[in-house]
Amino acid sequence: MFDPANLTFDANGLVPAIAQDAETGEVLMLAWMNADSISRTLDTGHVTYWSRSRQAFWAKGETSGNRQHLIEMRIDCDRDCLLMLVRQDGPACHTGRRTCFYTAVRDGAEVELMTPMEDQPSA
Amino acid sequence: MFDPANLTFDANGLVPAIAQDAETGEVLMLAWMNADSISRTLDTGHVTYWSRSRQAFWAKGETSGNRQHLIEMRIDCDRDCLLMLVRQDGPACHTGRRTCFYTAVRDGAEVELMTPMEDQPSA
Repeated sequence: MFDPANLTFDANGLVPAIAQDAETGEVLMLAWMNADSISRTLDTGHVTYWSRSRQAFWAKGETSGNRQHLIEMRIDCDRDCLLMLVRQDGPACHTGRRTCFYTAVRDGAEVELMTPMEDQPSA
Repeated sequence: MFDPANLTFDANGLVPAIAQDAETGEVLMLAWMNADSISRTLDTGHVTYWSRSRQAFWAKGETSGNRQHLIEMRIDCDRDCLLMLVRQDGPACHTGRRTCFYTAVRDGAEVELMTPMEDQPSA
């Protein structure tokens, strides 16, 4: 059986967790989890991080409605990093963009790859 | 212009870097970079991490030959995490598997999703 206690946490009791869109493969964000937030994520099916700034559980989308529904959790070889395959409601990024990784470095310059979702023309 | 000094590093001068296969979208691994390893990665086109255990540059694949060729570097909204889109030679994982995230949690149990690449029948 899987037990979060058998993961390797850092000095603050946290592991980085990558959220990836299970359907498109897009990497959406990286945040942090402690053992309890991992258990909550598995129990509820809603991805729940640990907010380092607020020192509190951060059930993604609880206030914004932009929830991350867990499709599958994966563990890396060193057991010190998680990959969350998710179905993301709306934007994952607090800026309103689909992903937090919207800035590319091209020819030494930063290039913004996308605008907030509400700014995009509807299909 | 992009300057690694304008990223937000942790207390150890590091940021987490996610490596993703640029073609398939597969998330391969997560490791850490300092400002110098980011510069080396951009200068050489070979993804170079900072090894926390060895406290030394870790030019991925330098000894194994399983190099990560940088296709594009991306920065997240908080500027404290990087996404490396790469072309990966051979396995990314030190266990010989294509990705480090080869363990899934399904129905409360850990399930191994793949074997080392050399064990796989050739196509």
